[in-house]
Amino acid sequence: MKLTKEQLLLYKENGYLLIENVFNKTETEVLLNEMNEIIKEDCPRRILEKNGSVRSFFAPHFSNESFDKINRLDRLVVPSSQLLSDEVYVHQSKINVKAAMLGDWWEWHQDYPYWKNDDGMPRPDVLTAMVFLNEINEFNGPMLLIPGSHKEGEFDDKENIIDADPNDSEWYAKYLKSASFMTSLTANLKYKLEKNTIAKWVEKKGIVSAKGPAGSVLFFHGNVFHASSNNLSPWDRFTYLVTYNSVDNKLPNIPEPRPEFIAIRNFEPIKPISEILSS
Amino acid sequence: MKLTKEQLLLYKENGYLLIENVFNKTETEVLLNEMNEIIKEDCPRRILEKNGSVRSFFAPHFSNESFDKINRLDRLVVPSSQLLSDEVYVHQSKINVKAAMLGDWWEWHQDYPYWKNDDGMPRPDVLTAMVFLNEINEFNGPMLLIPGSHKEGEFDDKENIIDADPNDSEWYAKYLKSASFMTSLTANLKYKLEKNTIAKWVEKKGIVSAKGPAGSVLFFHGNVFHASSNNLSPWDRFTYLVTYNSVDNKLPNIPEPRPEFIAIRNFEPIKPISEILSS
Repeated sequence: MKLTKEQLLLYKENGYLLIENVFNKTETEVLLNEMNEIIKEDCPRRILEKNGSVRSFFAPHFSNESFDKINRLDRLVVPSSQLLSDEVYVHQSKINVKAAMLGDWWEWHQDYPYWKNDDGMPRPDVLTAMVFLNEINEFNGPMLLIPGSHKEGEFDDKENIIDADPNDSEWYAKYLKSASFMTSLTANLKYKLEKNTIAKWVEKKGIVSAKGPAGSVLFFHGNVFHASSNNLSPWDRFTYLVTYNSVDNKLPNIPEPRPEFIAIRNFEPIKPISEILSS
Repeated sequence: MKLTKEQLLLYKENGYLLIENVFNKTETEVLLNEMNEIIKEDCPRRILEKNGSVRSFFAPHFSNESFDKINRLDRLVVPSSQLLSDEVYVHQSKINVKAAMLGDWWEWHQDYPYWKNDDGMPRPDVLTAMVFLNEINEFNGPMLLIPGSHKEGEFDDKENIIDADPNDSEWYAKYLKSASFMTSLTANLKYKLEKNTIAKWVEKKGIVSAKGPAGSVLFFHGNVFHASSNNLSPWDRFTYLVTYNSVDNKLPNIPEPRPEFIAIRNFEPIKPISEILSS
């Protein structure tokens, strides 16, 4: 799957690109079945909601072949390389569960500030491909995005983190000592965007919600503002998110790096494969 | 404002009826201004969110003339009388605030079980008129309803309350002793609907969301299933809800009735007025 010039321009302008029918029904059903098994494992990679249901499961590809294959699929890798103008590797991957009538919300935030401040990632040349394993509609907590908000760099509304210098190991040591990595994974986000920032941007650009059938993929920029409501509907909203980073933007060595299941340090460029179900 | 036969049939079938342009812009702006003053008062009628912002303010008409006039407006009273086939009085009224980026969600529930179990209201011949003081859109937490769900009576999924007998004062005394009336007003609802009940009904009837411009009014049945998400948008979702009860369905005498600001015991039928702004 190669993106057209028009699609590349849309992404550049809006900070996201939604494409339907990237995965077929057989593929999403297999992934859903495997997912339901994966998230049963009680381990540090599994993050729970306040109500005890599963919120996220990090790096399922560490232990599951199908999810490992998704990460390397040409359908995701080729567009990501085009959008980042470079070869790519996987920086992070996770299942976000948001189960029917249980899944909680995500506050407005950008992703890249976590990777910059917590992992030392030099630049926001990074994106996430979100695979819809169920249909996402108005009622099961679609991702909300503010088009164009990725253009203005990082907003550190909450923490006012000073600029991260990947070569300043003292800064990282001090910072990481006070920050539990868990605070970036639960419903109370560490770096979030405040009302005035959101209001200003929404007035200019509005809000869009990423809705579509199972098998759709949303590519979104590491700095685009996004959020999502809780899921009040009887329909699950299972998604798989793979974060692709430019190989030229790999993580530096820092003291006390976050666990590998949150910030992968295998920077080998991916060689794309074409099939997920047959081997 | 008199409802047409078609509108009456729609309400009977769906359990709700949404009408736009019932209030004009001047009226909603006056009400918003007064509302912003009213909710500043720190008193038992004011209910807060977990985050400390205002969630609801009960019976604003006790202390504010404009809100007292709304309750008696022909635009609300005449349709309510038609829908209930009787003269009506106000059983309850409240402002629901759901402020931008602060307002929390409402779980799936029916309203009438509270009024039956906590106030002794004999039958579900009761409805609420919800006045939109702001535009309600996809992003600021519209009310979700399941069409037709009002037809099957009360579901006591959570509490399995036995049938209330308004003449059984012993039952009420026992029940009320254990139940703080506060638990019906906050985000953790006392009578809520479980996933299986919702899933069954949604499969048959789907979900609708009540969206429309400021000045719209949603009439909804005391037994219709409804819920709403939190407000992630920078747009307030202020609403005023007036519950009209059939005079023939008035509350019996019970021991330890809930406070008058939650369950009004003035059963005089309303004489409709036609204007809210001029006196």
